[in-house]
Amino acid sequence: MAADNAVARLADEPVDHRFKALPPDAAGLTVGELAASRRNLFTGGFTTPVLALSAESVEHNLVLLETYSQRHGLAFAPHGKTSMSPQLFARQLEHGAWGITAAVPHQARVYRAYGIRRIFLANEVVDAAALRWIAGELDADPEFRLICYVDSVRGVELMDEALRGVSRPLDVVVELGAGDDARTGARTEADCAAVADAVAATATLRLVGVAGYEGEVPQADAERVHDWLRRLVALAADFDRAGRFGAAEEIVISAGGSAWFDAVADVFADIPQLSTPVLKLLRSGAYVSHDDGHYRHLTPFNRVPEEGALQPAFRLWAQVVSRPSAEQAFVNAGKRDAAYDLDLPKAQVVRAARTGETRPADGITVTGLSDQHGWLRTERGAELEVGDWVGMGLSHPCTSFDKWQLIPVVEADGTVTDFIRTFF
Amino acid sequence: MAADNAVARLADEPVDHRFKALPPDAAGLTVGELAASRRNLFTGGFTTPVLALSAESVEHNLVLLETYSQRHGLAFAPHGKTSMSPQLFARQLEHGAWGITAAVPHQARVYRAYGIRRIFLANEVVDAAALRWIAGELDADPEFRLICYVDSVRGVELMDEALRGVSRPLDVVVELGAGDDARTGARTEADCAAVADAVAATATLRLVGVAGYEGEVPQADAERVHDWLRRLVALAADFDRAGRFGAAEEIVISAGGSAWFDAVADVFADIPQLSTPVLKLLRSGAYVSHDDGHYRHLTPFNRVPEEGALQPAFRLWAQVVSRPSAEQAFVNAGKRDAAYDLDLPKAQVVRAARTGETRPADGITVTGLSDQHGWLRTERGAELEVGDWVGMGLSHPCTSFDKWQLIPVVEADGTVTDFIRTFF
Repeated sequence: MAADNAVARLADEPVDHRFKALPPDAAGLTVGELAASRRNLFTGGFTTPVLALSAESVEHNLVLLETYSQRHGLAFAPHGKTSMSPQLFARQLEHGAWGITAAVPHQARVYRAYGIRRIFLANEVVDAAALRWIAGELDADPEFRLICYVDSVRGVELMDEALRGVSRPLDVVVELGAGDDARTGARTEADCAAVADAVAATATLRLVGVAGYEGEVPQADAERVHDWLRRLVALAADFDRAGRFGAAEEIVISAGGSAWFDAVADVFADIPQLSTPVLKLLRSGAYVSHDDGHYRHLTPFNRVPEEGALQPAFRLWAQVVSRPSAEQAFVNAGKRDAAYDLDLPKAQVVRAARTGETRPADGITVTGLSDQHGWLRTERGAELEVGDWVGMGLSHPCTSFDKWQLIPVVEADGTVTDFIRTFF
Repeated sequence: MAADNAVARLADEPVDHRFKALPPDAAGLTVGELAASRRNLFTGGFTTPVLALSAESVEHNLVLLETYSQRHGLAFAPHGKTSMSPQLFARQLEHGAWGITAAVPHQARVYRAYGIRRIFLANEVVDAAALRWIAGELDADPEFRLICYVDSVRGVELMDEALRGVSRPLDVVVELGAGDDARTGARTEADCAAVADAVAATATLRLVGVAGYEGEVPQADAERVHDWLRRLVALAADFDRAGRFGAAEEIVISAGGSAWFDAVADVFADIPQLSTPVLKLLRSGAYVSHDDGHYRHLTPFNRVPEEGALQPAFRLWAQVVSRPSAEQAFVNAGKRDAAYDLDLPKAQVVRAARTGETRPADGITVTGLSDQHGWLRTERGAELEVGDWVGMGLSHPCTSFDKWQLIPVVEADGTVTDFIRTFF
């Protein structure tokens, strides 16, 4: 398939105005040529602000979740919405992933353009135009598999209408909601059964499992999350006993964001013998870059340190452009450059313009973001000058990746070895 | 210049996976061909979520600020960070704009790729790589003019170092901060004079005026904003008397975001006679799309309704994908699609999947956004089904445009007539 080489062809894109922070004097090179020149992030002509992705940390995180999934007998479809980067998808697949999870059909379109063969679309899809596109992809490629959610009888009706005439049925899993006032998903086992009945009445859909998202369990704690996961497994077992998965070669049971995959591993380890093999599908996506905020606090590895530790892979470098008082400084990165939905960036290090030396950002706090400025509060004695670069940690990978269309991959010594293209 | 045709060539880009919401069956067409086919947003195969920009409202807003600026004797450099859309820049210039304002050098790179001849860069630039690029652009195009801020002696030193050997000096304006604990800008008139002295001591920089941003005046109200603007004008007059603008053909005095341009018009009307002509430069950018939240409340036209009214031009359409209870519904648009930094989207209308009819979104409230979901609370009696489209108003143009790389321009009847490309 042409798409198989599409990832490699990303290196042929020209370095131009579409991409923030690239060295202006590299205009006209290809992205691959720029990577091959192994410039230094700090002295190689990159402009500020620039988001750097640690080569070593990404590799570490890819390996860690690969081994974690293997150890716990889980198949892995990391959520691709996090990075929307075909290059990272390819590496996730090389590291044993079963496929890639998507949130919306547009993301599946990106995946298909880069040759992804197995897509788990963790939402109900009732958009007729999108369903016709999915049907066309299934027709065109017998090896392509897409599984999506159903959580309503009305949704099943709309899907069936749009898919009439499809050459093979679309695989669906019933989504069980994570509780009252939680997010999507049928709220009760009876609701789930009604949806499954509706699926069974169509020739266009095939029920292959159940799924949900434990991250939305209300007042989530270990007990409530385990309880809900057991409900999900019990639902699968009930459906199996009732013969609802009769047409499936394997039964899919899927859960797992980035905060509770230890609970998923626990509960999925106890999935009883069903009538056909079970694909236990974990979907965690944020691990690939991890972070210095939200997921640093929530990662399951805090509870199971003996299984390893993820490494935060992003550092946003911005330059001090104003130092109007002893207490204030402003850098040239703002909401256009940094995640700001869960936490503000955290100042970690300062690279002094006068010396090129890097030191901890003691006494420096990010207190706010404008569209294009970061507000810094500096304590007495915190030396910080106009021109200095400030390296910041970010919170929430999903809203960090999406502000950058091409992200330098940087080794510990500052050498830029690659560029990660994103498609949001 | 080749860049002059670059805007027109945007129509030659292929419709592909890079752009959300475009009809899958239009893949392979160019963007221009898709526009020429005048599809309907609702029935023409567009997928959800889709952000629509009203053709009529954008035109209305372009005309309104053109006439407003003319009426008040203001030159206009709308802030391009809002849309980062070369097509909209071209229309702003056609509607009389003097140039386009940028926040960071990367934005100026985008502008130059699309032939913008006058750029007002409303920040100090101390990034050596960016300054060398600016110097190269000035060398290469005698008609190119870029003016940027200086607000510190250290910044002037760094700029001078980076610009040594430039063929013509870079035009700078001293930024006056908007008050204690405000954003960038030298805090006192004495600080401003010290910066101006530093500029005068270089051969690489030329002082051509003063500027600032009244939107950051602490506890801004009409009186405080007027007071600060009078300080800015007095600073220009003092500098002029002191002969600090000796090398300038005109003196630039610039202010004006999207909340106080009436105050700017008031105060700039009283700028005294100076030794050379004055360019009174307004920079408001959010007007081009306006909004249904932040700027709806803050627009100066609320105070001067006799001068017109901006029209909110964005409507985000998303589809109901889940309706798990009588009180809850979920649409397939989230933080990846909608502005969320100042306010949540507001449900305005519902387009029923069963009938194709549109009605007010009575009893429907957006209560939250996940990365890829919108959370809706529905009151008793609010009919809303899976498959329905919900049209939402947004708050903050700057964080709406930046989530879409290609935005359909839609006429009142739903006909898509054009697509606006953005570069963030």
